[in-house]
Amino acid sequence: MSFHDATVPAFLQILGSLSGLLSKAETHCQTKNIEPDVLLNARLYPDMFPLSKQIQLVCDFAAKGCARLTHSEVPSTPDTEKTFEELRQRLASTMDYLKSFKPAQFDGADAKDVTFPVGPSNSLTLKGQQFASGFSFPNFYFRAATAHGILRHNGVDIGKRDFLGVK
Amino acid sequence: MSFHDATVPAFLQILGSLSGLLSKAETHCQTKNIEPDVLLNARLYPDMFPLSKQIQLVCDFAAKGCARLTHSEVPSTPDTEKTFEELRQRLASTMDYLKSFKPAQFDGADAKDVTFPVGPSNSLTLKGQQFASGFSFPNFYFRAATAHGILRHNGVDIGKRDFLGVK
Repeated sequence: MSFHDATVPAFLQILGSLSGLLSKAETHCQTKNIEPDVLLNARLYPDMFPLSKQIQLVCDFAAKGCARLTHSEVPSTPDTEKTFEELRQRLASTMDYLKSFKPAQFDGADAKDVTFPVGPSNSLTLKGQQFASGFSFPNFYFRAATAHGILRHNGVDIGKRDFLGVK
Repeated sequence: MSFHDATVPAFLQILGSLSGLLSKAETHCQTKNIEPDVLLNARLYPDMFPLSKQIQLVCDFAAKGCARLTHSEVPSTPDTEKTFEELRQRLASTMDYLKSFKPAQFDGADAKDVTFPVGPSNSLTLKGQQFASGFSFPNFYFRAATAHGILRHNGVDIGKRDFLGVK
């Protein structure tokens, strides 16, 4: 199996499943007569990021992760999304971006150095595999599962199968 | 990089960081005069698993995942832990189990079939890489991040750096 097989499909699986979670959340708002902003701005604690920012960060960890692993230009996307539909579009454009990579671009990337920013003024260099396993994926899943937790905590009828994107 | 490098260290990183999260939660209980059971039984929603079960599931997804990938006997661990200390011991014994694998046991495992149970009466067969990327890790991180979310929601002073195990 290639390093592409070990990275891109995993990102795509969860980006797709989050789109489904947002649709269920939007339907929940319509059914229960809840303003969408209530859920889009919901947080698990006052100093945590709200749902919308969690989704934006999920997209960033996937897109920037793949860019850094393939030594491509790292995309910078303004966080302008204000509705469920706009967040689904952000997820979809992130998926399109990930699909634009050719598997060969990842060949050997597991053993190549990746230098990436940590905090406002420091950077860290890791081998591609360590960057993916120790930084990129844990951050990606952390944001995705927190988004799920926010919606679940607010009573949206979702569960782990929705998170995994299993039918 | 080997398939062992792509799996075992990632599990160990988060199993270790969760042990630190539990220690901070225990200190929080002592400082605020909160019964430990309040946090150990805390949930984000009434029909979700409580913190203690999330930790037990994290351990299971790591241990069983590595066992299935290496075609070893799949361990079955009774969920008896009732205290922070017992949960830390569960995490530690899971880490010891993962460290007991030799890297060579994972050689070629990414391309070998893994058959595993899904639900009470079905099973699924995937290549090892797909099992790891599409099932094992998403479930593992989902439980770990949910455990973090439960503690964060209850006011324990932790954050993403604690989740990642970054000093």
